[in-house]
Amino acid sequence: MRKYERLFFCGINDLNDELREMIRENDWGGLILYPNVIQDTYKLTEFFNIIESNGKKCLISSDHEGGQIETIPFIPPFPGNMALGKTRPEYARKYAYLSGNIMKSIGFNTVFAPVLDLYTPKNSAVVGFRTLGGEPVKVAKYSNEMLKGYKDAGILACVKHFPGHGKAFTDSHEMDVIIDASPEALKSEDFVPFKLAIESGVELIMTAHVIYSSIDTLPATLSKKVINDILKNEFEYDGVVLTDAIEMKAISEKFSPKEILEKFFNAGGDMILLSNGVKNFPIFYKALEELLNEGRIDENKLENSVVKIKKLIDRYYHKQSVGFINSTVEESIEVNFDNVKPALNVILLIPQPQKMSQADILSDHYIKIEKLARKILGAKIFRYDMKKPKKVDLPGDALIIDIIVDTFKNENLLKFHKSLPQNTIYVISHDPYDKKFFEDRNYAITYSMTPVSITAIFKRVKEFLSGF
Amino acid sequence: MRKYERLFFCGINDLNDELREMIRENDWGGLILYPNVIQDTYKLTEFFNIIESNGKKCLISSDHEGGQIETIPFIPPFPGNMALGKTRPEYARKYAYLSGNIMKSIGFNTVFAPVLDLYTPKNSAVVGFRTLGGEPVKVAKYSNEMLKGYKDAGILACVKHFPGHGKAFTDSHEMDVIIDASPEALKSEDFVPFKLAIESGVELIMTAHVIYSSIDTLPATLSKKVINDILKNEFEYDGVVLTDAIEMKAISEKFSPKEILEKFFNAGGDMILLSNGVKNFPIFYKALEELLNEGRIDENKLENSVVKIKKLIDRYYHKQSVGFINSTVEESIEVNFDNVKPALNVILLIPQPQKMSQADILSDHYIKIEKLARKILGAKIFRYDMKKPKKVDLPGDALIIDIIVDTFKNENLLKFHKSLPQNTIYVISHDPYDKKFFEDRNYAITYSMTPVSITAIFKRVKEFLSGF
Repeated sequence: MRKYERLFFCGINDLNDELREMIRENDWGGLILYPNVIQDTYKLTEFFNIIESNGKKCLISSDHEGGQIETIPFIPPFPGNMALGKTRPEYARKYAYLSGNIMKSIGFNTVFAPVLDLYTPKNSAVVGFRTLGGEPVKVAKYSNEMLKGYKDAGILACVKHFPGHGKAFTDSHEMDVIIDASPEALKSEDFVPFKLAIESGVELIMTAHVIYSSIDTLPATLSKKVINDILKNEFEYDGVVLTDAIEMKAISEKFSPKEILEKFFNAGGDMILLSNGVKNFPIFYKALEELLNEGRIDENKLENSVVKIKKLIDRYYHKQSVGFINSTVEESIEVNFDNVKPALNVILLIPQPQKMSQADILSDHYIKIEKLARKILGAKIFRYDMKKPKKVDLPGDALIIDIIVDTFKNENLLKFHKSLPQNTIYVISHDPYDKKFFEDRNYAITYSMTPVSITAIFKRVKEFLSGF
Repeated sequence: MRKYERLFFCGINDLNDELREMIRENDWGGLILYPNVIQDTYKLTEFFNIIESNGKKCLISSDHEGGQIETIPFIPPFPGNMALGKTRPEYARKYAYLSGNIMKSIGFNTVFAPVLDLYTPKNSAVVGFRTLGGEPVKVAKYSNEMLKGYKDAGILACVKHFPGHGKAFTDSHEMDVIIDASPEALKSEDFVPFKLAIESGVELIMTAHVIYSSIDTLPATLSKKVINDILKNEFEYDGVVLTDAIEMKAISEKFSPKEILEKFFNAGGDMILLSNGVKNFPIFYKALEELLNEGRIDENKLENSVVKIKKLIDRYYHKQSVGFINSTVEESIEVNFDNVKPALNVILLIPQPQKMSQADILSDHYIKIEKLARKILGAKIFRYDMKKPKKVDLPGDALIIDIIVDTFKNENLLKFHKSLPQNTIYVISHDPYDKKFFEDRNYAITYSMTPVSITAIFKRVKEFLSGF
């Protein structure tokens, strides 16, 4: 392990071999999961499986603020902060507790919320919905209740965006943002919710990529005046300071990785958020090593940051997660691809949806499975009628994936399946009893018709084909 | 409160005034939510709000078994029991704990799971997927782990379907089911998982509407030999005995409500499951009163059942739920419908989807809102371009719902909105600043563009129109 990996909070946008290896090799301080991984059950459960099987302990976060930004599909939809701010503080606590509980069940231990920024008239809808309102004391009160809710649920909350993004009218994802408010206006307004959060013991604060012209010419993320003088000295904050994503243009287009690291750590910051961890971590780690060799960052400072980050991990990391779902899928399926031949095209044969009983949701599964076959394998779809299967004309050069259900009950159906070309994989969905008919062929047994199990088969087919 | 309402477990298929009143008036022992309510966030949160605001304590359940039957959308998808049975018992416990935790967060305190039925070769896929396998000791072991997981999560588990449905080849939803197995075969196979569950302290058991011809000519649900002699005397089970849904044809087509109640309670059963509570509870309660008047059921027996059911409620009822989400929605919106005129047709005007920033999911909301407008109000949809709004030709007799976002930023946009016919409701999504332009018109302020908040507006419009 390199010494300062804990200083990085890396964004995970997809799972691939490069990422799997990086997770094995590194001990990052934090990982934030983005929608592409969170909203694909197979990937989400595989991610937690990788973390656990490598014995990795770190902060694991999402951007799930509720309302306008909801990335975890297992948390009930919420109107969001702006509506919440029109109601009662107790609902703020309840929402944080509810969402925190579900985050924890999934495997998360951190959340980049609550938003402490103030609403300003004429903020765009995109920003406005995320705020709890425009009155400093009220925003402080509601967000404080949210902090209690997350804490009760065992989730580390990260307040944002210090010292307050609310007076900005441009988007720091896209461009420079400058706020011209006076120090007095910032103090009596934007700072207020942060001060209360700090008094209440908040342990993680995210900085804004915003220039506060009355304080400094540098964005808050890189400003010693903001981080060291105000946040640490004046507000006596002793917790971890995290940047907003470094890739955002307000920072990345104006400063090099070395400039960012040098300024941020020397300003008193602790942790760098890279929204594209796989791509940017090696670049930033190299830059950090150069800075250390050049003696431009104090090693004691970094060691101190590592200690603080480790404490958070020790306090919040827990072992509950959905990783076992991935294990259940992978350990339950049985595959024989001995005679699969390479093919450019894949065809999925699947029963026509038809409700067989009240308890039957197979039909819904069929529709989802078709979508998965298109997405994962680019497959063409042929539906067959389980009651009267008719011979289909299939191109000779394709690999056929044949989803079979209850074949043993119907001789015609069995004949139909057996008549398919040699380069067919039979997906025996539930009855190993069906297996005996296909033992000399390529097959996969899933013991399930749920999309998550069928995804596993499609992924194996894809891997197999790409191996030729 | 009538004396024996606790003896009924009622199914909730939808929310309407009739149900709201029945919930207020009755103290049912249990309520089971079906997908139409669970999978509609507005209805789900409203349901829990009704329960809480009426101070009702009762068992609240779902059929969420995992895999083939998953009714709660907030629990991660699972391959299901049959696949699970091919892996490790620890995953069974983990799945029950994960799903139990999320159930509890939502507001449930009971689940009709795990399934203890044995897989039999040639079981149809629909039944087969729901079983943990065919080996009695293994099914007992895995289901026992599930019971531990639910218990750890604070969820009351209901094992089913006593004394074992696995040897059935027909569907009791649709017809008579008879199992001809010998007493020895049942004892050494189907009974095994139930015996272990009882030894482990299971507190709720659901009966099968299956005739076990070697035991009795009556279905297990109505059989004194099954419930009293085997389950209570032989297995020494002292918990609550619940029927499977009485509406299933295997029971409802052969026995009258009075026959069902008389036989079930006299056989030693405690609780009747009505999948259509609103329709069937009055019928069954009337039948129960007649039986009591005629002295055909022992009152002491019923009182004893009520005591047992109350104990379960005291042990498992909890106050955490998503009910506050409904309160947040309802308390945050502001409506002025003073000049809304009756109309047969509703038209929704909504911005064309377009991504404005990385953090923007408004576009996704627009698409969902269109669907809601069609579903709730039967509305026709007109999309407008926020950058270049063009005059649309609207039928003069319609009510127009105009979704407006950031109007104050664009004079043309404002003119476009203001030029609409008088019978328009302006839905001001986020900025009360926009309100001043529409104060003399009909409007609704949501402070949110999430589907759950917009649903609330559409529901109010619908109510308002139906009031004319």
